[in-house]
Amino acid sequence: MAEWDEHTRVTPDGEGRFAAELTAGWSVGGGINGGYQLAVVGEAVRAALPAQAPDPLAVSAYYLSPGTAGPATVEVDVRRQGGRTATVAADLVQEGQTRIAVLATFGDLGHAADDVRTTAPPVELPPREECVSNKLAPEELRTIAPLMDRFEMLFDPATAGWAMGAPSGRGELAAWFRLVDDRDADPISLLMVADALPPVTFDLGLPGWAPTIELTVHVRARPAPGWLRVRHATRNVAGGMFEEDCEIWDSAGRLVAQSRQLARLPRG
Amino acid sequence: MAEWDEHTRVTPDGEGRFAAELTAGWSVGGGINGGYQLAVVGEAVRAALPAQAPDPLAVSAYYLSPGTAGPATVEVDVRRQGGRTATVAADLVQEGQTRIAVLATFGDLGHAADDVRTTAPPVELPPREECVSNKLAPEELRTIAPLMDRFEMLFDPATAGWAMGAPSGRGELAAWFRLVDDRDADPISLLMVADALPPVTFDLGLPGWAPTIELTVHVRARPAPGWLRVRHATRNVAGGMFEEDCEIWDSAGRLVAQSRQLARLPRG
Repeated sequence: MAEWDEHTRVTPDGEGRFAAELTAGWSVGGGINGGYQLAVVGEAVRAALPAQAPDPLAVSAYYLSPGTAGPATVEVDVRRQGGRTATVAADLVQEGQTRIAVLATFGDLGHAADDVRTTAPPVELPPREECVSNKLAPEELRTIAPLMDRFEMLFDPATAGWAMGAPSGRGELAAWFRLVDDRDADPISLLMVADALPPVTFDLGLPGWAPTIELTVHVRARPAPGWLRVRHATRNVAGGMFEEDCEIWDSAGRLVAQSRQLARLPRG
Repeated sequence: MAEWDEHTRVTPDGEGRFAAELTAGWSVGGGINGGYQLAVVGEAVRAALPAQAPDPLAVSAYYLSPGTAGPATVEVDVRRQGGRTATVAADLVQEGQTRIAVLATFGDLGHAADDVRTTAPPVELPPREECVSNKLAPEELRTIAPLMDRFEMLFDPATAGWAMGAPSGRGELAAWFRLVDDRDADPISLLMVADALPPVTFDLGLPGWAPTIELTVHVRARPAPGWLRVRHATRNVAGGMFEEDCEIWDSAGRLVAQSRQLARLPRG
């Protein structure tokens, strides 16, 4: 079993309740990566819904308290179940504290109409052998960011200058991405991918943790197997906050997910 | 009193409950405009929270059933209240049916840091006298879209061709916007403005109602008085759905709100 499936497994624990375990392997900066937590919620929602609605279409997560390594419960309340989709409210809870409050609409991306009229330009990256691997990160960085061992991320050198103290200043980050164990992406793992890259503020010369207020992901297609191309960009740094737009493109050239989060600028 | 304030007024109706009235004046295509409904929720949330958190920062709305003209109740559940912000879950309910399920984080935009490093290019519109007013819409259109009497919208001719059967095909719409009664925008009315323009699919030659699955609005600043500039764009029409990105700029040149909704393509 790929470690991703082990790390996101949920088991039924009563009506609308699912038990999970948040692994320290997805820690970063003293907390647990928000996208990984959201994917755990996604797995519980899928388990709670009928087979006709296995895929997230839109998921909105409001981060209320930092996740910690250890047991967690996901509580799922089905708010509406229609012909093709279902909408739920879900909470990720640890020790009586809600970590994330979620609203999500699930459906079936396998039966989506196959018209594709995407006009967004695909994320263009140099060949993987020319990109900067997260495996090269220094030991002290990997110690505060164990999540880096969960995936391989190959950064476009053009927006990886921050790693050598030379951020581009454009507020962009782009990388190839895949999970370890050759575990291909699926609609639920895309919820994690949308929050896996370092904060785009690194490229503005602003290091440090950028706490997420809210993250909404639209999953638009089941991703093809293989490497993903992920791009983050910010255009509205203001008032102590910034938005981080993410696009995820699959190996078939499809824009499989779009997300935007609102986050606080790092302190200092 | 400006009609907007009359149309969005809420009154306390028990613990965490507020009574409201959805006016037929905000009808469109047989339903009630989703952004107006969301603004009514916003007014209830503001009333429910302490004075330190009067402004929406991030609001996510999942549309479960079509709103109807008539009484409504907003139920507000405070999920977290911190130093500077509060997060709530809220439902807009009519006749026992939930119309919208909402998660929202409120804070104080009046005390936001005043650093503005926005790099997004402002929406550029021709002078208002060169734009196409919604007041010129034919009577049959105003009959199915009473909401058009609630505001003045001056469309950029470059993306108003759809009104004469000549959509630009670029998937963009842009217009000047203000409410009637010279009622200036405020952070909560921006929730409505994000959903006030016709569906961007009109500019793709796809007429008809585009049902919203989910709408998330980030309000980034209190808008200056006067006309707003609003732009919608779509880049990922695929699988029977499309995303609609909205930017709202105020008269001081500030990007005061950004939103994205996921909607279904019109049928036919």
